[in-house]
Parts: sequence; structure tokens; C-alpha cells
Amino acid sequence: MPTPSVLPDQVARDLREFSIEVPSWAYGNSGTRFKVFGTPGTPRDPFEKIADAAQTHRHTGLAPRVSLHYPWDRVEDVAALRSHAEDLGVSIGMINSNTFQDDEYKWGSLTAGDMTVRRRAIGHHLECLEVMRAAGSKELKIWLADGTNYAGQDSIRARQDRLAESLAEVYQGLGEDERIVLEYKFFEPAFYHTDVPDWGTSLLHCLALGEKALVVLDTGHHAPGTNIEFIVAQLLRQNRLGAFDFNSRNYADDDLIVGLADPFQLFRILFEIVQQDAHRPASGVNFMLDQCHNVESKIQGQIRSVLNVQETLAKALLVDREALADAQERNDVLEANGILMDAFWTDVRPALAAFREEQGLPADPFEAFRASGYEEKVAAERVGGNQMGWGA
Amino acid sequence: MPTPSVLPDQVARDLREFSIEVPSWAYGNSGTRFKVFGTPGTPRDPFEKIADAAQTHRHTGLAPRVSLHYPWDRVEDVAALRSHAEDLGVSIGMINSNTFQDDEYKWGSLTAGDMTVRRRAIGHHLECLEVMRAAGSKELKIWLADGTNYAGQDSIRARQDRLAESLAEVYQGLGEDERIVLEYKFFEPAFYHTDVPDWGTSLLHCLALGEKALVVLDTGHHAPGTNIEFIVAQLLRQNRLGAFDFNSRNYADDDLIVGLADPFQLFRILFEIVQQDAHRPASGVNFMLDQCHNVESKIQGQIRSVLNVQETLAKALLVDREALADAQERNDVLEANGILMDAFWTDVRPALAAFREEQGLPADPFEAFRASGYEEKVAAERVGGNQMGWGA
Amino acid sequence: MPTPSVLPDQVARDLREFSIEVPSWAYGNSGTRFKVFGTPGTPRDPFEKIADAAQTHRHTGLAPRVSLHYPWDRVEDVAALRSHAEDLGVSIGMINSNTFQDDEYKWGSLTAGDMTVRRRAIGHHLECLEVMRAAGSKELKIWLADGTNYAGQDSIRARQDRLAESLAEVYQGLGEDERIVLEYKFFEPAFYHTDVPDWGTSLLHCLALGEKALVVLDTGHHAPGTNIEFIVAQLLRQNRLGAFDFNSRNYADDDLIVGLADPFQLFRILFEIVQQDAHRPASGVNFMLDQCHNVESKIQGQIRSVLNVQETLAKALLVDREALADAQERNDVLEANGILMDAFWTDVRPALAAFREEQGLPADPFEAFRASGYEEKVAAERVGGNQMGWGA
Amino acid sequence: MPTPSVLPDQVARDLREFSIEVPSWAYGNSGTRFKVFGTPGTPRDPFEKIADAAQTHRHTGLAPRVSLHYPWDRVEDVAALRSHAEDLGVSIGMINSNTFQDDEYKWGSLTAGDMTVRRRAIGHHLECLEVMRAAGSKELKIWLADGTNYAGQDSIRARQDRLAESLAEVYQGLGEDERIVLEYKFFEPAFYHTDVPDWGTSLLHCLALGEKALVVLDTGHHAPGTNIEFIVAQLLRQNRLGAFDFNSRNYADDDLIVGLADPFQLFRILFEIVQQDAHRPASGVNFMLDQCHNVESKIQGQIRSVLNVQETLAKALLVDREALADAQERNDVLEANGILMDAFWTDVRPALAAFREEQGLPADPFEAFRASGYEEKVAAERVGGNQMGWGA
Repeated sequence: MPTPSVLPDQVARDLREFSIEVPSWAYGNSGTRFKVFGTPGTPRDPFEKIADAAQTHRHTGLAPRVSLHYPWDRVEDVAALRSHAEDLGVSIGMINSNTFQDDEYKWGSLTAGDMTVRRRAIGHHLECLEVMRAAGSKELKIWLADGTNYAGQDSIRARQDRLAESLAEVYQGLGEDERIVLEYKFFEPAFYHTDVPDWGTSLLHCLALGEKALVVLDTGHHAPGTNIEFIVAQLLRQNRLGAFDFNSRNYADDDLIVGLADPFQLFRILFEIVQQDAHRPASGVNFMLDQCHNVESKIQGQIRSVLNVQETLAKALLVDREALADAQERNDVLEANGILMDAFWTDVRPALAAFREEQGLPADPFEAFRASGYEEKVAAERVGGNQMGWGA
Repeated sequence: MPTPSVLPDQVARDLREFSIEVPSWAYGNSGTRFKVFGTPGTPRDPFEKIADAAQTHRHTGLAPRVSLHYPWDRVEDVAALRSHAEDLGVSIGMINSNTFQDDEYKWGSLTAGDMTVRRRAIGHHLECLEVMRAAGSKELKIWLADGTNYAGQDSIRARQDRLAESLAEVYQGLGEDERIVLEYKFFEPAFYHTDVPDWGTSLLHCLALGEKALVVLDTGHHAPGTNIEFIVAQLLRQNRLGAFDFNSRNYADDDLIVGLADPFQLFRILFEIVQQDAHRPASGVNFMLDQCHNVESKIQGQIRSVLNVQETLAKALLVDREALADAQERNDVLEANGILMDAFWTDVRPALAAFREEQGLPADPFEAFRASGYEEKVAAERVGGNQMGWGA
Repeated sequence: MPTPSVLPDQVARDLREFSIEVPSWAYGNSGTRFKVFGTPGTPRDPFEKIADAAQTHRHTGLAPRVSLHYPWDRVEDVAALRSHAEDLGVSIGMINSNTFQDDEYKWGSLTAGDMTVRRRAIGHHLECLEVMRAAGSKELKIWLADGTNYAGQDSIRARQDRLAESLAEVYQGLGEDERIVLEYKFFEPAFYHTDVPDWGTSLLHCLALGEKALVVLDTGHHAPGTNIEFIVAQLLRQNRLGAFDFNSRNYADDDLIVGLADPFQLFRILFEIVQQDAHRPASGVNFMLDQCHNVESKIQGQIRSVLNVQETLAKALLVDREALADAQERNDVLEANGILMDAFWTDVRPALAAFREEQGLPADPFEAFRASGYEEKVAAERVGGNQMGWGA
Repeated sequence: MPTPSVLPDQVARDLREFSIEVPSWAYGNSGTRFKVFGTPGTPRDPFEKIADAAQTHRHTGLAPRVSLHYPWDRVEDVAALRSHAEDLGVSIGMINSNTFQDDEYKWGSLTAGDMTVRRRAIGHHLECLEVMRAAGSKELKIWLADGTNYAGQDSIRARQDRLAESLAEVYQGLGEDERIVLEYKFFEPAFYHTDVPDWGTSLLHCLALGEKALVVLDTGHHAPGTNIEFIVAQLLRQNRLGAFDFNSRNYADDDLIVGLADPFQLFRILFEIVQQDAHRPASGVNFMLDQCHNVESKIQGQIRSVLNVQETLAKALLVDREALADAQERNDVLEANGILMDAFWTDVRPALAAFREEQGLPADPFEAFRASGYEEKVAAERVGGNQMGWGA
């Protein structure tokens, strides 16, 4: 199709309603086990993280919610943090529990054999529910680092049973319109077995819990070669896709900027989403980023990320689905594939620039942010204190 | 532990009851897309395949059942084939349906968009149920080659829906004590998406069908790095592990002899089995081989395979589970792991030799078969005709 | 950058000189070990294959050479085949040796322990040189299926030594301006070890042989996650990149249409090429396809493939390399990456359509071929005879 | 073969001469990006690390050398550290350079575009040579974290050129009988491209440098599925295998205890070693550990590791190589493989216990260490101070 100068009406409507949640931790320092590099201007507290996150929304109009990681983002007054966010035009999104940074969790958290540890982990999740309510949020996200490094270290089966029991207690704590989303991950930090390693395991626990438990799909948490869009389709078919953690990876859980390792994969994933109207707010799927900006500018990285998702979603929305269904029915493989590829190769950037301007946003949010002087300003202002990272 | 000269009583009891089903197709030719090598003496019909399979049982006492692949093993008189098997001391096991060798299935079978093709595929499965009954078997194994090679070629979601409908029709055809087992596979022959690519998908279809539908785990059908014993534990926990296809692999679905690529993996898998008593007949798990002897002697390959499973099962049964549980409770990682490794490194071959002799079997079945002259005899006798392979 | 309506002059010049060699075997049937599907109109002899290959060139102007596979493409009169090709506007390119389809090569060819087999394999390569000369070609491509399926089956080291000796004999047979290119492959059809599994091994053999030996990089022949553009850069740095086998893959050596599994990877590869001017004829790199059209139309698949390469090469040529170098020097990660992505997302299709029309070619070669009636014509004409595939 | 009660003479001779170098950093804390767990008794300085390392040697007789990581192991008086080691019965082995922990190396070290950074990195290596000499060592080990996270971030090619120049300067600093060994790694901490990602790249740089540059093979630094024993065979064939970093992995560079993820792989690797007598000191191959004991006891983990290597080496030495060669020549795949497996399954532990006792060592070094009270003693003594880890 020719490069469109404006978006078709329905595409524009869909994009106007579409939003992406950004993670507070992306604005702090992160790295690898070898090194965490700091940069001038990195936030020293959750308030500064939210201020930075608000920049992403301000320039893109795409990121109105900020996920918190608890206790990384612990503050004395959650209500104050919430007001701070609202003053900056954003709200607080999911609360992410964290049971991997304390020494007590060395042998597991919700799966631990030691009942005291398990109780502590359950208690942490119940506390997260309180934070969630204080923050005006409705969702608790659970990702567990639980697993083992050596065969025999613990019983795989017993840990599943203990996990089920622990999750049931957390689930009991949910209010009517609240929900938990359970993330799975192929490996890391455990190197032999992981207690929730795949979508099947996450889904089985959710099915056992009830309708307020859904699966989180993180695009970096799969074995090499896994067809992720298939999993998206399957979870949507089961009505159990709760949230999406976007990022990209070449090797393990690299947590790179979404769409920069394999942009066509992102397109295929979003096309599965679009075919079930799951990009629309009514679907209840929470689209989020979960990334680490180890070497690149963090706010720029976040802006690039949400733009990549928006741009790719626009392409997915442009697919001529009627023609596609027709080609599929005729088993015309190359025509069907060509219809997808046509949308993929269509340059939606000019039309998106126009779309943004209509909404009073900069045509090029990335350049607008770079030109805004914000990075220089915070680098100058945020002197002293401890830069936040994973672990504080 | 010191090298045991005899097996502990309970281990011996367990091993006496343990059996492995062998696939008729392992006795025919197989290969890669590049070449199928033939060897003198290869069976020319299903009767000869069963004769060869009976050799595996005769020397090992381990392989009393032979799976058939239909229509590869189509004969005019199934009852005659059954009698032939029984005369040779074996019985007919699972019937494996085959919807990948006919031109009609180019675009799928149970998932095909074309209703005529789907009906044909359903009909094939119902026909397999008839063969199953005539053969005195109770289980139908379904592995589908269905999938696509290019993004957009067909709708992933629509194919799931069609698959569910097709399976439901086949399931309706099951008698009271009959069951179907549904195999999953990561990829091949489809190279973009596969319709039943993972245990989660297979299990969801089984759950939707009912209690007579169970999952088949083929050890070669996973993404690189997948922790297979975890899946075993999970499927056992759901009471949905129906059958096991043993083989081994270094890369893709290499279909090598079980236990020769990663013997420790086989041990870990069998240890999960043993911990739930799933190696015992009462568990209902059917342990099978699914291998391709591309370059090695086929009957020797099969004998080596069942011996590898037996030997490794003996090791798994020798694990000191009480001591293990104790070390696990204390989070003594290296002691716990060491308890597993101790059993793994124990040489069970002398005790197994004694165990076999007690049962009137050769101490070394592999060498006994080699010395028996059977291979030379069939090579001399089976002259003319067409050697069987995948496809006939 | 805005969607260009015409290509910049230098890009157009480069594209006019750029060509891709197509493989004769892509026009015959191919498949997996499970099934080879035939289609009406498939060539029954090498002459018909070349006629089909000429269609690819006719509509795209991109594919003036056809690689032969020997003995698959054995004809009585090579000169006649050559004339036939020239009459159709194409020439014969590389000769591909084949030492994997004969029973004698079960245990290896150039690496075989049996000297008779090794001599036969060397002789086959010398015969290929004769065919090469008769066909007017200068290059012999060697890909070996040699390897083993089980640890201990043969000596890895001894096979390397035998390979080196065999290759030296073949190399001795080369004329002044002739060369061999040695392909590597991660695995398949061997499933334990492969004798030339990686670029390092191929390069070491080439270095030992001399300057007329170069490496072939097949994009599907690597371990999961391998950074292929790094290998391209490394081989160019060593002046030893002889040829390129384009295709794409999601899992193993899937041999799918180039650019359809991961179009961004193709772009990154071509950008490494372009940075060293290796896309220009003077570089001596032979760009080829090596694909299997298992389910899609073969000629259409070939046309789509060469167009994908051309389109992606145009994008790679559009990268603003000066700006890129500048951003790299400043370690401005996201700006540098953004410069690449800008070219990647630019829609070059309108400008390429104009470029083609200038050369008297159809603006849309894919649709032009589909509309030409050629497929219907050969389907009607090519009745009887045996369709060609791998192995004949 | 029957369980041997004593080792054959030649095996015992070989084992007496065989030694393994242990890494100082294995005795400090390590972990993942998520968490580094500390344990009571962890060394607070390099002297304590060496004291712990000496325990490994004391109980096993296998680990007479300790590698240092510089500047992690920087001390004011290297001679004092050397004396301390010698007093404890060990010596200082390789010096490992470290150019990944300083902020200056964010964009690379020996490959950095910024000449100041490159000079600093070169200077660091020259300083390491000084430390090496003061420590009485002859080898400098170079592993680089250099690479990029995003396509376009830097020029892959230019970085190779800069790396070559930097290495040449370091190489110039080598004395007559000194050498450098260059390690490669598939990925991490860089997630898009790594500057020395594979054995081919490492070897090319070594070949360009000269005979005093050799390759280090770390068993955890390969793509999934890579046949590591092939690389061992290839590097030995080129006389360029300088050192071995033992560890094991299931996923990425997990740095688990050698032999615990895939013991058969370790056996196959050591069998390639043994076939070229490369386990003997005259070969010049330095066998080392490179592991992280994230959750298990560190000293116990090291003891288990060297025992695993010793035990597996004993098995590899027991292979009946004459019979193997004979079976290989006859292409008797299963007999040949069976000869390997026979040695693998032979329980060498009783004979090794006797072998150790002959040398005045504990029959079971692992249990002897656990019973020694050393861990309890250092836990009580080492109070206060900062536990050492990666980064200090």
C-alpha cells in the first residue's frame, strides 16, 4: 500500500485509546552481574522516577501509568506518591511484588520449604495489595525468582504444591475488582529449574485460583526459537492473557528495547492481539514495558520503546484482514504472507506524526524530548544522594 | 554406594513389572530429508517388523508390546497380525494415526480449513479406533504434522478452534476403557508455527476433551534447554501424563537412541517418574520408544534403548529418597545433589545381569542378540520386495 | 527519511550491478523427512528447471545465473544445457557437488575412513570441475553431509585430517582462475558431530588450502542466537567470504524464503556487506539463494526471494553512514541505532518500482509473473515423466 | 568392565601428574543481577581467598594453583601474597585481567573507539604482566566484556581492527616464556554483538599475534547445542588450546559446578583431550575452573568440581582405545559407542579412593573437608570487614 499521510479513522480511534504502562525501575540504574553503570541525573527516589516516567507520557501521550516495584519503590506516604504522579499527568499502575532481594528468600519465597519464609513471602504479597489500594491500582503482578541450581536441590513437585497453596492465600486477599497476574520465565536467576518456567505452568495455577488470576507474557522469557505469537493466541483463546511485558532479546532475558532485536516478531505478536481486539481497553490486557537501559539513555529508551509499540501496532492495524482471510482460505501462501508483509513494510511514521500533532503532541517525541533540555536539567539538579537501582 | 551385586528386592520387583513399548517403524528404514539408507534384512511388511520387534523382547524381556503406525502398518487381516504377534510373544500396543503422508493433508489435517480434508482426517482417526480394537489395543496416539511455514499462511487461532472440534469428534468415538494420547512437538515438519507445539497446548485440548485424553511427552520435542523433568512432574501432578516417547537429541528432533545424548537427563526424568510411582503399571503411563535408526543396526539399536531405560530406571530407584528429603529440608545443596549423583554413578550392570539371568534372560542381551545370527539370517532370507520405511 | 520516489544515483548504480544466483533445485520438489509434496508443472529434467529459473530473471532482472547440483543435474550434453540457459537469458553458475545421496557415503565422503570411499568422493569433485568447465563456470561449491550420530562412532580428529587431505587433492585440480567455496553447517543430517560445523572450521581448511579456497555462509546454518552479521564482518575482514547462501529459518535449517523469518537480520547482514562494498561485483562474493519451497509456489517463492534481497539491499544502501559514524563516535547509542532503523523502515518499494520500469522490467515482478500464465502453462504441458526432487 | 578396585598403572601415573587451577573469585561471593547472597566466613581479602583455595588442594591434591583476578585481587605486596600461597602449599597461577568494572569501559576496553580508553585498557594489561611476574606466573588470561547492545551502536569491523592493534601491544610486552590466552564468549554482558564471541575469532587473533597467544575454551561460553568436544579437537589440532575454563550450564553462562549439568559432555570433552595426551603437563594446556557458587558452599563446590574432573578423567583414560579404533574402522556404530559408554558407566570411585589414600589424601575429600570444621572456624573468625565479591 502507498505510504499513508493520515491514519484510517478506525486505526486512529484505536491508537487514541491504546496505552502502555511503564516500569518505575526502567528509570533507575540497571545492568548485569558484571557491572551496573550509573549516569548523571538518575533518580534518587521513587518521586524522581515518576517525574522521569511522566516525561515519557508527556512527549508521547502513550504512557499514562507507571508500575511500581515493591519494596524498591517503598515510600512513607503512598498517597503522596500518588498525588505526585497525578500532578504530573500520570497514575500508578501495577504493583510488582519482589521476593528476590532479601537473604531470607535464598531458597525460594512462595515455594520455600521453610514455612516461616513462605509465610513471609505471602505476607509481602498481602502488603503489596495494601500498597496497591493506597496507590489507586487494581493489579498485583507476581514474578518469582524461585527455582534451583542443581538437580536434587529440592523437590520440583513439592514446590509446585507449596506454590499453589501460597498463591491461594494471596488470591484470597483480592477484592472484587482486583486481580493478580502471574508471570513465567524460562530461567534466571535459577539455572537448573524454575518454578514457573512457562505459560502452561502459569496458566494452570491461574485456572486453579479463579477468574481473577491471569497470565503475564514477557516477550523475553522463552526458550530460543519459541513462537511467542502462538502463546498470545492461545492465552487470548483461554481469556487468560492479563498483561504483556514488552522488551526484546537476542539471547537470554536481555531486556532490550522492544522492537529493536526483531521488529517483525513484535509485529506478528501485535497482529495476534489485533485480530482479537485485545489492544482495546475492554480486553483488559495491560500492555507494559519491562526493560533495562544498561547503556543507553533511560528516558530516551522508554520513549523509543513506546513509539516502537505504537508504530508497530499501527502497522498491525493496517493489515487487510479480509484479503488475508481470503488468501488463507485459498491456501495461497505467498499472497497471504504478502498481505502481512505489505502492512509491515508500510511507512506509518508520517501518518503518526500527523496523528500526534492533532493531539497536541510533538510530531517526533524522541527528538522533542532530546531537545527539551530535561536530561541536562536533572543531571545538574540531582547531585548527591544515592541513585536508585535494583535493590534499592 | 558400593557396586551392588544384586538389586534390592523392591527395585527388582519394580523392574519385573516395568515394560517398554517399541515402535514398529523403528524396524523399518528411516533417515533424513537428504537420504534414507537401507540395510539388508530390513522388513518388507508389518509381519516382518513384528518379528524383529519380538527379538527385542525375546532378549530383554522388556518390550512386550509393539506400536503400529497406520496406514504404514495396514494389513488386510489385523487379527492375523495380532495372532502373529502373540505367537512371537508380544502384543500390539498403541495405534499411531498418520495424517502427514497424503497429499490431501498439505494444508493441515485435523486443523485444515477445508472441511472435506478435516472430515477425512477425522475419519482416519475413527478408522484407527477400529484397527485398535481389532488389534486388541486400547490407545490411540495422535501426533499431528499440522502447522504453517510462513507468517500469515493461516490463522493460528482458527486452527486451534478447528482442532478442538475435530478432536472432540474423535473423542466421541472412544469406548469406555479406551483413550487417546495427544503428542506435542516444538517444530518440524512445520517451520513457522506448529498447531500443538508444547505441553500446555496439548494439555488444554485434553482438559477440554475429558478424562480419557492424556498428553504424550516425546523427549525430543522441546526447545533447546527445556527442563523436561519439570514437565514430567507437572503432567503427573495433573494426572495427565499418558505416555512417553523416549529418544534422545542434540539439536532438533534427532530421534537418536534414548540415553545416548544426555544420560543424566534420562536419569533425572526417570527420577521424577519414580518419585510418583509412575513407573508402575497402575500409573497408566505407557513408556514407549520413538526413534530412528538411520545409520546403526535397528534391532541392536532397539535393544540398546530398552536396556538404557532399564539401567537408568534402576539407578533412579536406588536413590536414597529419605536422605534426599532430609538434605533438601536442610537446604544442603551439595549433599542433596550428591545423593542423586551417587545413584547415577553406581554401576548397576552386574546386578542387572544377575537379575536377567534369574528370569531366564541373557545376562547381556545386546551381545546375545549379536551372537544369535538373527541379523545374518534375515539378511539372507529377506531378498526381493520393498523394504519398509516411512511412507509405506 | 521520507519515502523516496526515486533511488539515489549511487544506490541505483549499485543495484543495477547486483545479482543473485538461483539454485536449480529450488525449482524441483523438496520437503521434509515426513513428506515431499509435488505440484503440477514441476520440472522433470534440468532443462525445465533452467526454464523456470529463467522466469525469475526475466521478471526481476536480478537472477542471471543458475547453480547446478551434481549429479542431480547430470545431463548427457552439458554444452547443450549451457546453450539452453543462454538462449533463455541466463548462464550456469556454481556447480554444487553432492556426496550424500549414494549408499557408499553412509559413513562419510571426503572424511571417510575407507580410502576407497574417499577416493570416490575426491573423484566426484574432480568430475564436478569438468562439468564446471563445460558449463562455463568458475566455482565449485562443497557442502558435506559428513558427520556422526553417536559419540565414539568415529574419530573427530582423524576425520579432520582426512578432510584436509581430500580437499588438498581437489584443490590441486583447480585452474588458475577457478575456486572452491566450502560451506559449513551446524547440524543435519548428522546429529552428533558434523565435520564442518562452523565458519572457523571452514576457514581453517581454506587457509590451509590457499587463496582459491573461500568460505560459504548459509544464513540457516548456525546455532540458535548466532550473530550472523558478525561472521560476515569477520570473513570479509579475512578476505575469505566466497559466497552467500540466502534463506531464512526459525528453528533449524528450515530453508525458508530469505527475509521472511527475520527481515531485520537480513538488513543487518546486508549492511555489513555494504559497508565493505562487498555487494559490488569486484568483491567476488557470490550471492546465492539456497531454499526449499516445500508448500509455496516455487517460482513465486524464488521471485519473492530475490526481491526481498534487492529491497533490503536498497535499505542498507540508504543508511546515512556519515551520520552513523558520527553518532557512534559520540557513543550516542539510540541515535546510532535510530539511523539504522530509519533506513530499515523507509519504504523503498515505490522507488524500486520506478527503477525496474526504467530497465524495462515490470514494476511488480511478483504480480507480473503470477499474471503471466506461465504456471498454468507448464502445469498443462508437463504431464507424465518424473518430477525432479532431491535425489534425482 | 568390572568396577576396578585399583587404577591401571598408566591411569594412576597420568592422574598423579594432572592438576587443576582454581579461581580466587570462586571463594568470594557471586550471584546474578538479581541478588548476590553472602555467607558467613566469606573471605574479606585475597589472602583469605587463597587460604580457602588451599583447602581445596589440601583435601584433593588436585589444585596446586590459584588464578588471580586483577584488580579484584590487588594487594600492596604481591610477593607477600605469593609467599602466603606457598606457605599454604599452593602457588599463584594465571593473572586474569579485568576491564569491565570501571566506568571508563562502558563502551569497550581493548576495542573502544576512544583512544584514551584503549590506552588505559592496554596499560591495564601491561600492569597485569607485572603482577604476573611478581606472582611467579607465566600466563595472562584475557576475557573481554566488550560488545554492544544495539545494532548500529558501533562498527563491528572497526572494533575488530582496534582489538587487533590493542592485543598486539599487549603481546609485545610478553617475555620469552610468557604467554597470553584469549577467551571467547557467546554473549553477556553484551546483548547484541560480542567482540570475541567464538573460538574462530579468538583463534584468528592468536594466529595474527604469534605463537605465544593461545585460545581459552570456557565450557559455558557457547550457543545452545554446540558440540564443544569438536572445538577441543580442532584447537588441539591447531596447537592453540591454551587453557580450559571448566564449569557447566543449562542455559546461558550459568557457571555451575563442572560435571553437574551434563556429566557425559564432560566425559566426551576429556576423551578428546586424552586422545591427544593433552591432559599431560607437557601439552601446556592449563585446566582451570571458572565457576560461581551462588547458593552452595563455595569451598565444597570447588572440591566437588575438581573431584568431578578427576573422576571423569579417570573414566576417559579407561576407554579401550584400541578396541574403539577397531570398531570405528568397521563402522560398527553401536559397538564403538558402547566402548565409550562402558568406560563412562564404570564406577571409578573405589579405585580413586584407594589412589588418594596411597598419596596420603582422604579417600573422600568432600566428606573430609565437611568434617574438618574449617567452614565453622572461618565463619567464627571472619567477622567484620567486607566480604569479597565481583567488584572488589
